[in-house]
Amino acid sequence: MKLPNPSLYTDFYELTMAEGYFLSGRHQQTASFDYFFRKLPFEGGYVIYAGLGDLLEIIEEFTFSESDLNYLKEQGFKDEFLKYLSTFKFQGDIYSVKEGEIVFPNETVLRVEGTIVEAQIIETALLNFLNFESLIATKASRIKQSAEARTVLDFGLRRSQGTGGLQASKAAIIGGLEGSSNVLAGQMYGIPVSGTMAHSWVQSFEDEITAFRTFVKHFPDSSVLLVDTYDTLKSGIPNAIQIGKELEAAGNQLKAIRLDSGDLAYFAKKSRELLDTAGLDYVKIVASNQLDEHVIKSLIHQGAPIDMFGVGTKLVTAYDNPALDGVYKLSSFQGESTLKVSENVEKITLPGIKRTVRFLHKDGSFRADGILLEDDSEVSHIYHPHYPSKHLDVSECAYEELLHQFVEEGRLIKKKPTVSESAHYAKTRFMKLKEEHRRFNNPHVYKVGISKKLQKLRNQLIQNLKQS
Amino acid sequence: MKLPNPSLYTDFYELTMAEGYFLSGRHQQTASFDYFFRKLPFEGGYVIYAGLGDLLEIIEEFTFSESDLNYLKEQGFKDEFLKYLSTFKFQGDIYSVKEGEIVFPNETVLRVEGTIVEAQIIETALLNFLNFESLIATKASRIKQSAEARTVLDFGLRRSQGTGGLQASKAAIIGGLEGSSNVLAGQMYGIPVSGTMAHSWVQSFEDEITAFRTFVKHFPDSSVLLVDTYDTLKSGIPNAIQIGKELEAAGNQLKAIRLDSGDLAYFAKKSRELLDTAGLDYVKIVASNQLDEHVIKSLIHQGAPIDMFGVGTKLVTAYDNPALDGVYKLSSFQGESTLKVSENVEKITLPGIKRTVRFLHKDGSFRADGILLEDDSEVSHIYHPHYPSKHLDVSECAYEELLHQFVEEGRLIKKKPTVSESAHYAKTRFMKLKEEHRRFNNPHVYKVGISKKLQKLRNQLIQNLKQS
Repeated sequence: MKLPNPSLYTDFYELTMAEGYFLSGRHQQTASFDYFFRKLPFEGGYVIYAGLGDLLEIIEEFTFSESDLNYLKEQGFKDEFLKYLSTFKFQGDIYSVKEGEIVFPNETVLRVEGTIVEAQIIETALLNFLNFESLIATKASRIKQSAEARTVLDFGLRRSQGTGGLQASKAAIIGGLEGSSNVLAGQMYGIPVSGTMAHSWVQSFEDEITAFRTFVKHFPDSSVLLVDTYDTLKSGIPNAIQIGKELEAAGNQLKAIRLDSGDLAYFAKKSRELLDTAGLDYVKIVASNQLDEHVIKSLIHQGAPIDMFGVGTKLVTAYDNPALDGVYKLSSFQGESTLKVSENVEKITLPGIKRTVRFLHKDGSFRADGILLEDDSEVSHIYHPHYPSKHLDVSECAYEELLHQFVEEGRLIKKKPTVSESAHYAKTRFMKLKEEHRRFNNPHVYKVGISKKLQKLRNQLIQNLKQS
Repeated sequence: MKLPNPSLYTDFYELTMAEGYFLSGRHQQTASFDYFFRKLPFEGGYVIYAGLGDLLEIIEEFTFSESDLNYLKEQGFKDEFLKYLSTFKFQGDIYSVKEGEIVFPNETVLRVEGTIVEAQIIETALLNFLNFESLIATKASRIKQSAEARTVLDFGLRRSQGTGGLQASKAAIIGGLEGSSNVLAGQMYGIPVSGTMAHSWVQSFEDEITAFRTFVKHFPDSSVLLVDTYDTLKSGIPNAIQIGKELEAAGNQLKAIRLDSGDLAYFAKKSRELLDTAGLDYVKIVASNQLDEHVIKSLIHQGAPIDMFGVGTKLVTAYDNPALDGVYKLSSFQGESTLKVSENVEKITLPGIKRTVRFLHKDGSFRADGILLEDDSEVSHIYHPHYPSKHLDVSECAYEELLHQFVEEGRLIKKKPTVSESAHYAKTRFMKLKEEHRRFNNPHVYKVGISKKLQKLRNQLIQNLKQS
């Protein structure tokens, strides 16, 4: 995602604080921030991480142009601070799990280390990209799961939340969809794009059959005829069959018909019958109209013979849960671990520079995740972040480190992941997530625990605050 | 909103159809499309129309660059069609209600006339901008209403749906908010931006009072101290009072404190008491954290002494209703009125080139809207679009034409509305909407009816279809 001015894609207070740090001579002090989320969306059991590619795209361009500085001057920022900004570059380090990774609440998904100013100033863009793209990749993964082996395409751009639709289409592919109608996302991210006809095509001809016949003349092997403009069973399907026969006679094949209204289970069954009876059993059925994972599951359960689903609004806006609650919290400042307490125990942060590790079952599937301190070694047990009596013995488990360094002193040291790489990675990782964590409703909670050492550090810091 | 390639910000099928029209020699045939929505969001009584400014921004730039054409060639489009696209410009007409207008279901909010290709190809961008910005302007209007005279600011960028956050911040201002934290939206749209400190500022100092003292040193008259990093009543407020006193001694004034967690009603009351007792009755209280119109209404009902609200996620994603169902339907082709029927009676479109008029009460407030044919004159009654027996006598009412021509043969003939103009217009129009239509729950339904002539035209076309 190219932004005109990535450095201004930020909350005003990030700049106010930056000026405060600069004016008080603290802008070179060092900090570490964690990106994590607290609550799984869609009442589901997992999140597919996405947005890293777009974040890395802007990191190296995070500078302030002349016109940006002029704008900030108008907003009251001081000349000496603007002079500092004029040579500002992000020169910190970024560690992240790979794009497409399956991630869980409370664990560090991405960590930024650098000066307080540089680590702070990228917060808003970072949260914006990671929260939204992870949300949509997760929704797409659920929808794809519901469709089983059937193809699912994204048709959502017209109902997307503004230009966020570009990121939505991309994240949908990372989450497992096969393609999109979004042409600009196709050009920007190299994702597969396709599309055929709308109702207006049919309406613009004197009758439906002429509309169909004219269309297939130009697209003899790739036509998907939209059959519900007038009357699906009395007009749309009979006309499509007629055209299918004409194509056959010319040595071509009608690809599919599309249903976009009415009871999709009923119309799909009836359409299949009519097509099969006419000898057009190879013509596929595409369905669209307010689909999500629950509707698709129900359609399949009812035996609706649909071969391909087009999903829109419910996918691209994550309709039933339109935001992921990811946050970016200071965990260390000038080498000292820091904490934010809260009235709400579950919002007390995890202090210190941390790793995220994944413990594995013998068959390689995911057992549990551990949040460890950087210098933790030989972790035999992990503990529930809030109920210390709940713990898990992981002494027999092999484990993987999930965080990898992508940026060193402001420079990309790993290739930015492409969408297809991230989609492939998500797929391979998802296969290692046990069935019970994938479930749509009441999934089995995947365990994420903290190390003994991290537990002690946090307790110590809480104690210190109480005494101060 | 500047898009890198507005012409590719489209669904693939728009281009497939365009190629089909071109190859069949129909690309110069003329069409008229209506933009309208069917269902009011948020169970509310009205929509504030927004997005027109961004749409007009791209209309004159709607061309295909060399790299766009290369991309489309890779996608299989034919050379002769690409040659046509290489000189393509939108040269149609656009009629629209003014940005900031109060609009209602089924009525034509915007109308495009032009060749079938140009009118069709802008559909996706048009729907994307108008649907989303109108949705957010409407949500903002509801939130602003709940806050009565208090200031409301948008803090939502970090939870926005990707770069849609830029349009969200802008639409929020059109809907009535006073400012935003979104710096890039400030630069792009000239909207007021502001912001002060986050928890990390407080955490990065050895103690809270030092953090506060350092901050106000640099911002002596504009500081909003965030008081809930450690303990609001035991630490945050007492420290803020101490700093307030120090500022007073130096001839300055602490501007405000901000509450961002816990029970906001309780903490606001306690904070107000403590501040007042200390003689700091001029220090304002700002509250944020998961606010929407319902929470704000409840806080005010409880007597919480909050002066300013910061709203985020619930506003910028329109959390409880994250999409407006606006559609773009062909109403006329080559001068002939067209219709799309549907299993669902409410989805049968309104044919013909139409006007939207607003009938007024004697005091100038809004009485009802009428959907009329272009050549309708002396309309004395309007009829429910689906229940013809329900009608309204408007013979005594003055009326206004709501649609104005903004684009003629591809050129802007009216100034593009600025955000502040649209916000101002929304405000003046909202004052003419009666209380009972503004209500949050079960608002009185504002009447929108069709003319006798339009009713007849539609019935005739339905009849024709049944006979064919």
